[in-house]
This record gives sequence, structure tokens and C-alpha cells, in this order.
Amino acid sequence: MDTKFSTAIHALILIAGAEEPMTSEQIAMSVGTNATYIRKVTALLRRQGIIRSRQGVKGFELLVKPEELSLLTIYRAVEETERVHCFDLHQNPNDECIVGRYIQPVLTDVFREIEEKAERELGGRTLADCMGRMRAQFAAGDKR
Amino acid sequence: MDTKFSTAIHALILIAGAEEPMTSEQIAMSVGTNATYIRKVTALLRRQGIIRSRQGVKGFELLVKPEELSLLTIYRAVEETERVHCFDLHQNPNDECIVGRYIQPVLTDVFREIEEKAERELGGRTLADCMGRMRAQFAAGDKR
Repeated sequence: MDTKFSTAIHALILIAGAEEPMTSEQIAMSVGTNATYIRKVTALLRRQGIIRSRQGVKGFELLVKPEELSLLTIYRAVEETERVHCFDLHQNPNDECIVGRYIQPVLTDVFREIEEKAERELGGRTLADCMGRMRAQFAAGDKR
Repeated sequence: MDTKFSTAIHALILIAGAEEPMTSEQIAMSVGTNATYIRKVTALLRRQGIIRSRQGVKGFELLVKPEELSLLTIYRAVEETERVHCFDLHQNPNDECIVGRYIQPVLTDVFREIEEKAERELGGRTLADCMGRMRAQFAAGDKR
């Protein structure tokens, strides 16, 4: 399980909605993990200029408007890769066999085409979309 | 790394192209793994009626035409799930916090929408497509 991406979205929704800068401890409490893991994720978000922490102030602030912050930008920041990864490829095919020799380039291409669609989908959704869905869930939950 | 899917495609290309039934040992040699792992993957393919082994004959035969065998069918058989999985979700958000309470349904929906696109893409590609690409790579490789 690699939950850096979902943890980052959770943390960013908290940071976007908070009136005061959110600390790692506060974020960890809501995410249900420890502050060390949150600091690892926030360091990656900070490195990409998505959040900042100001000197003398405890906690993080959002530097990008939620409606301008795509899920693809968040994914790339915390997974430290440009490319969305969905499918693993076996690494030691035997290149003395024709299938073994060409399976990697063929599957790399096929998987990449599908992962590019996933990238486009992530690129078309923003933090603000997630916050809107959350408000809708909240409103629906309240009516039950 | 979960390479059951790419291993299964590799194995099925071998089985589809072989004149005699392919054994686990032959497949393992080309994939670059051990026969035990191949038997695990082929057992899953056999369970879904994609390949068979006949009594008294060593090795596997394809039961579905390559042009009718989608990558989605292969994925579902070996991953033992209907749903393509691309993104993990953190499992212990704190439901005393509003964001913690609604993050799972929100991200489950968002991730599912993207994974459904990936499913559609896998569903639109067949084993025969992979074999055609492999022939093209082989022809291009020969010219180099």
C-alpha cells in the first residue's frame, strides 16, 4: 500500500479549509497516522511549492488555489514521478526467446497508453472538486 | 511489485504462438521466473477458462481466440478482482473530524472514476493486439 497520494489530498483539504496554519500533529490526528509520516508527505508538497510553512509560525498554508491544484500535480509531487503508475512489469524476461525479448517494450507501450489516460483524468480534477464532493457528502450525511 | 498481470500476458502470448502445449517450465524460462510462480498464474487463468491442460498431455492450450481475449479479462483473472486498482486509500481516517469522516467515500468515488477509464482501456485491447505489436517490434528490430 502506498497511501501518500490519498494522505496528501486529505492533508491539503484540511490545510485549505483551516483558518489557522495546520500542524503535522493536527493533520496526523485526522488522517489516522503519525506526525512523522505527515512530515514526509508535507515535505514533498512543500518542495513543489504547493504549501509553505512560515518562519515563526507553526503549521502549513496552501500556496495554490484549490481550484487550480489538480490531482495530477499532487500525485506527481508526492510520488516523485511525472508518470502515473498502474501496472508493474516483470523485470527479467529471457531475451534469448523472441517473446522474452520484445515483451517489455510492448507492455511498456500498452501500459503507458492506459496510464496516460489516468494522468489526463487526474489532471482534469482539482482539490476544489474533492472539497465540493466532501461538502455534498456532508450535506447528504446530515439529512440521513 | 505485482507482476502477475504482465507475466500472464507474456505466458499467453507464448501459449498462443506455440505449436505444442507449453509447459510451466518452458514459460518460466522465457518469463525469467520459476515454474512455481508460473503455475500460480496459470492456475488462475485455467480457473477462468482462458487456458486448459488436457489429461495425459503436458502443458497448456489457449481456449479463447487471441482477438477475443481482452487485457481486462486477463487482469481480472489473475488479480482475482473485477476492479482495476490504481490508487491506494489510507484506511484509518479519524471520523471525529469532518474531513476524516468523508475522505474515504469521496476518494473512493474519484479513484473509481479514473480506474473505470483504465478498465475501459484494458477492455478495448486484446492479446492479439499485443501479439501484433510484438511482430512489429520484431520486424523493426530485425531491420536495425
